[in-house]
Amino acid sequence: MKLGHATHHLLPARTLERLVLYRRLLGGVADESRTHVFSYQLARMARNTPAQVRRDLMLAGYSGCPAKGYEVRELRRHIDGLLAGGARRRIALAGVGNLGRAVLAHYSQQNPNLLIAAAFDSDENSVGRVIAGCRCHHVRELAARIRDLDIELGIITVPADQAQEVAGQMVAGGVSGILNFTPVPLVVPGHVVVEDIDITMKLQKIAYLCQPSHAGRET
Amino acid sequence: MKLGHATHHLLPARTLERLVLYRRLLGGVADESRTHVFSYQLARMARNTPAQVRRDLMLAGYSGCPAKGYEVRELRRHIDGLLAGGARRRIALAGVGNLGRAVLAHYSQQNPNLLIAAAFDSDENSVGRVIAGCRCHHVRELAARIRDLDIELGIITVPADQAQEVAGQMVAGGVSGILNFTPVPLVVPGHVVVEDIDITMKLQKIAYLCQPSHAGRET
Repeated sequence: MKLGHATHHLLPARTLERLVLYRRLLGGVADESRTHVFSYQLARMARNTPAQVRRDLMLAGYSGCPAKGYEVRELRRHIDGLLAGGARRRIALAGVGNLGRAVLAHYSQQNPNLLIAAAFDSDENSVGRVIAGCRCHHVRELAARIRDLDIELGIITVPADQAQEVAGQMVAGGVSGILNFTPVPLVVPGHVVVEDIDITMKLQKIAYLCQPSHAGRET
Repeated sequence: MKLGHATHHLLPARTLERLVLYRRLLGGVADESRTHVFSYQLARMARNTPAQVRRDLMLAGYSGCPAKGYEVRELRRHIDGLLAGGARRRIALAGVGNLGRAVLAHYSQQNPNLLIAAAFDSDENSVGRVIAGCRCHHVRELAARIRDLDIELGIITVPADQAQEVAGQMVAGGVSGILNFTPVPLVVPGHVVVEDIDITMKLQKIAYLCQPSHAGRET
């Protein structure tokens, strides 16, 4: 059952996605050692409008100083806190093939509040090894280790035919959210949030959108 | 300039995404050697409604026989033809790290009409090698080889700081669509379609959606 006050705090999905983008762009700004940024500058980098940037940051509960722009480091910390709920969130990743390794190596390090605490695979060559700084366990230990390690989120990068089984084990262990890289529509209880990244679908979509008759070429 | 008749054929993005899903589910059905499938069966697998399935397939220009259901092989071929415009589309992939290898190994083989014709990297250990059946060239040859090989689409799996440069070379070579795995908002001419797969954003989004106060637990 959803609690009434929960929805009050929940940002719309598109706002959320733009906030994540601003957060990343602010990383770039900080590297350039600028201390402040104006909404029109952020808007230009994010390819939207200053009004949109201001509206999003207001929804996120942040108000800058209009005369000097937003304070970069403070705004980054504000968005980080909002996205992760202020606490470090622990993640389990199942499937350490190429895709799983890419996620382990790059994507878990973008936000200090997101930690891939354990990896899982059925391949004995991977089990027991440390891969990109993360210990790999046998997939049959999935539910038990999720409980032991207080893991809240799961990432599924196993082959499609193992996806539903792995999702079931993650739910049994107590995760409340799953990022699913397989094309399988996962069946999970209603309180578990699933986000899908369907690479094949995106490939086919772009192929469709770029058919010669759609591309609008004047040949 | 967009041609007037182009939009006439263009399916809505959501319809398109569901068609890709049906196509994949039909693959599973064919493995089970069933020859026909009803809209209610397809709907159950895709987690939507029979009416939605029928509407999508009608929009796709396919009409089944209501008494026997849809002929599986024929419907698959119809969707394949629609998605790829009937022709084999050639793709260039830049960046053969873990993520690029995952795409090469798995995702290009899901649809026979999509062929990754060449891979590119700046790492001399990869250049000249055949990776997952695909020859890897130096990234400086990107534009020239795209032209030579009649490549129409690009996939970008390079590190973020090389993404814009690679996109520019792909556009110079003549691609009309790019699948971008980096978090960088690419700047490309208006006739080039870009689809983004932002893994970090999805991770942060699911972390946000699964914060204890949002998950609706009654603890």
